[in-house]
Amino acid sequence: MPYELLTEDKVVPYLASLPELGRIFGSFDDIEVREIGDGNLNFVYFVTDRKDRARSAVVKQAVPYVRVVGESWPLTVERTRLEVMALRQERAICPQFVPEIYHWGEEMCVVVMQNLYQHKVVRGEIIKGVKFPRLVDHLTSFLARTLFHTSDFYLDQAEKKRQVGAYLNPELCKITEDLVFTDPFEENKTNSPNPRLGAEELERFRADPALKIAAAEMKHKFMTEAEALIHGDFHLGSYMANQEETYIIDPEFAYFGPMAFDVGKTIGNFLLAYLSQAYHRRQAGEDPRAFRGWLLQCAEDVWTGFAAKFEALWAEHMERFDRVYWSFPGGAEAAARWRAGFLDRVFHDALGFAGCVMVRRTLGLAKVADIAAIADLEARAALDRQALAIGRELLVQRDRLESIEDAVVLVLALAPNA
Amino acid sequence: MPYELLTEDKVVPYLASLPELGRIFGSFDDIEVREIGDGNLNFVYFVTDRKDRARSAVVKQAVPYVRVVGESWPLTVERTRLEVMALRQERAICPQFVPEIYHWGEEMCVVVMQNLYQHKVVRGEIIKGVKFPRLVDHLTSFLARTLFHTSDFYLDQAEKKRQVGAYLNPELCKITEDLVFTDPFEENKTNSPNPRLGAEELERFRADPALKIAAAEMKHKFMTEAEALIHGDFHLGSYMANQEETYIIDPEFAYFGPMAFDVGKTIGNFLLAYLSQAYHRRQAGEDPRAFRGWLLQCAEDVWTGFAAKFEALWAEHMERFDRVYWSFPGGAEAAARWRAGFLDRVFHDALGFAGCVMVRRTLGLAKVADIAAIADLEARAALDRQALAIGRELLVQRDRLESIEDAVVLVLALAPNA
Repeated sequence: MPYELLTEDKVVPYLASLPELGRIFGSFDDIEVREIGDGNLNFVYFVTDRKDRARSAVVKQAVPYVRVVGESWPLTVERTRLEVMALRQERAICPQFVPEIYHWGEEMCVVVMQNLYQHKVVRGEIIKGVKFPRLVDHLTSFLARTLFHTSDFYLDQAEKKRQVGAYLNPELCKITEDLVFTDPFEENKTNSPNPRLGAEELERFRADPALKIAAAEMKHKFMTEAEALIHGDFHLGSYMANQEETYIIDPEFAYFGPMAFDVGKTIGNFLLAYLSQAYHRRQAGEDPRAFRGWLLQCAEDVWTGFAAKFEALWAEHMERFDRVYWSFPGGAEAAARWRAGFLDRVFHDALGFAGCVMVRRTLGLAKVADIAAIADLEARAALDRQALAIGRELLVQRDRLESIEDAVVLVLALAPNA
Repeated sequence: MPYELLTEDKVVPYLASLPELGRIFGSFDDIEVREIGDGNLNFVYFVTDRKDRARSAVVKQAVPYVRVVGESWPLTVERTRLEVMALRQERAICPQFVPEIYHWGEEMCVVVMQNLYQHKVVRGEIIKGVKFPRLVDHLTSFLARTLFHTSDFYLDQAEKKRQVGAYLNPELCKITEDLVFTDPFEENKTNSPNPRLGAEELERFRADPALKIAAAEMKHKFMTEAEALIHGDFHLGSYMANQEETYIIDPEFAYFGPMAFDVGKTIGNFLLAYLSQAYHRRQAGEDPRAFRGWLLQCAEDVWTGFAAKFEALWAEHMERFDRVYWSFPGGAEAAARWRAGFLDRVFHDALGFAGCVMVRRTLGLAKVADIAAIADLEARAALDRQALAIGRELLVQRDRLESIEDAVVLVLALAPNA
């Protein structure tokens, strides 16, 4: 059927017309449809059988513009086709971390998928002070597996190149290129900093040669390094979790880019959460140190967990398939040095990307609620300044910081856990 | 018309059937067709009007296998479509350095193009001791212009990504991935070293951990860095020149890869020529130093010329289009530092690629005549050893060599100009 905007009243008849949904919903007699308002790009509905709430689904439809801005920012619905392709590929690699797709209607740009009704968006829960003890273990497993299995270390070279072509995703990449790497670092009408940050301090921030060069270098890496199928929007709002399970959603920014981008985004987001909890825990009448300590440990564990798992997958794969090249006395040690050198480069780049994330979430268009939703603008400004200072140092010193522990020392120096 | 192998007798009837060739050939009554035997992949014919030798063309047809090996190595004729696309794009950027295409018959995989009958393949001439005073100036202009104008520094981001997808070229890339970066560094049946190189010294060369790691790192860069449309086979055999003009031919390996690959291939080829001329000039009864000095200067000038021209194109473009981001006090200096930092990275990678070229042309399947055609295997072995030693040092020390002058000092230390 040709493209038509699904309004709330049209969702149930649409689902009822799909044979594959019969498996999910026994009948469509008593279905509740609820539109959730927090999608930046799309319309998203929760659809639930009132008599059996386990029978439910999420319906997501793309509109040919950026929903949060309106028709003045056109964006083709091609993004949903790419998201479905990425979800299917990620699920093939990591079924335990990716929701199941029940139906994909290409013409209508509607995807119907597993409703993670027993899980919550991690960002909102973390703001409230909820810990997820297994979260980082799951995230690093997802990152290591998806990035390794779509890299040249694993894929057949022709298949890898075919996938690069299938996931070019210029429109969503442009959003990242502009909003993460460019606009926040210059005077740009898309920026919306906290009004309590003075014009002069913002101008000084934007006039920092080392910072500008570092951001431009990270942007070039993002635009040219076709290393692996990255999620592209890997932050706390893209994880749905409970105490046992974690799902990664919304890979519409997926494309073949630098692995370090996903890793760095995660680190940057945990650091922003760490900063914000100096405020939120105190507001809740708690001592913030334990929860903040957990968040900082999460940031650290993202790197160590990812690196260890990626290295293990790679070493095991080489042991089975790449032996000829390294089959000389000392070859196994040399191969291990090669892998360590590669991961070292990913590490430094991840710090740079984490720095970009901290700057763009503070100054740029699309904020994260951790800090930006703090109504007390003075309190928020203190955190904004920490985010900018840490972001700046991560970018400028990314190649000089020798380990994730060094990066944590830097963070603690600029934003003590007190 | 469907695919059919053009044998020598079918060339003229084929050309006579093409209206666009009427402009080149007045009549087809007295046409000479000569197949040249030196194509590795394709059949190539020179077609000339005996009454007016200025009326001529080159006819190139791909066969669905690697011609030099035979049907046992299949290769789709897709490569010629890509070659035509690259020739047209390069010619749009640099008309003075790229032959004109008269006809492209996609089904037949036949391209008919300008016959550079007043030019000769540079490698053969250089072996004979011929200098080309304008060659490096032309090569660096071609490199700077084609690489800059297909990079993210110049192209619209969506157009760049579209082109990345159009030039994926997995089959030809695989040849490079295997023959340049893998096989020569391991025990592999495709290798064919000079039999006077002892098994023990080859084994020692292949068991050098730092060398293996460096080659693996360069291979990963080649496979993942989609920086610009590279020619992909940029060596002395792909240049046709005379004392005034230079043309770049045969871009069938074109794809979006690291800029440093084309630059490094050129440097590596001039260094091989430099080594070989210690033999060839003496064989011709000459003092080799002046000609060798010119070749070494060519290698050096490839880098300095490319870097200066690329930087100038980039600076001029930024001055016109990228001002906002750098519009702060000291912004122009910061932008210049950014460009210098980028070119510094290209420089180090170019040395690494030059090192790979010197190793692969010495040990691997596809040789270059400069050294490999020397019948005196002992004399050749001395040069082979120099090529391996220099290739090794360029790979392993690529990030420590701070300038092209440092690289030249290294070359002279391992292979004095005597």
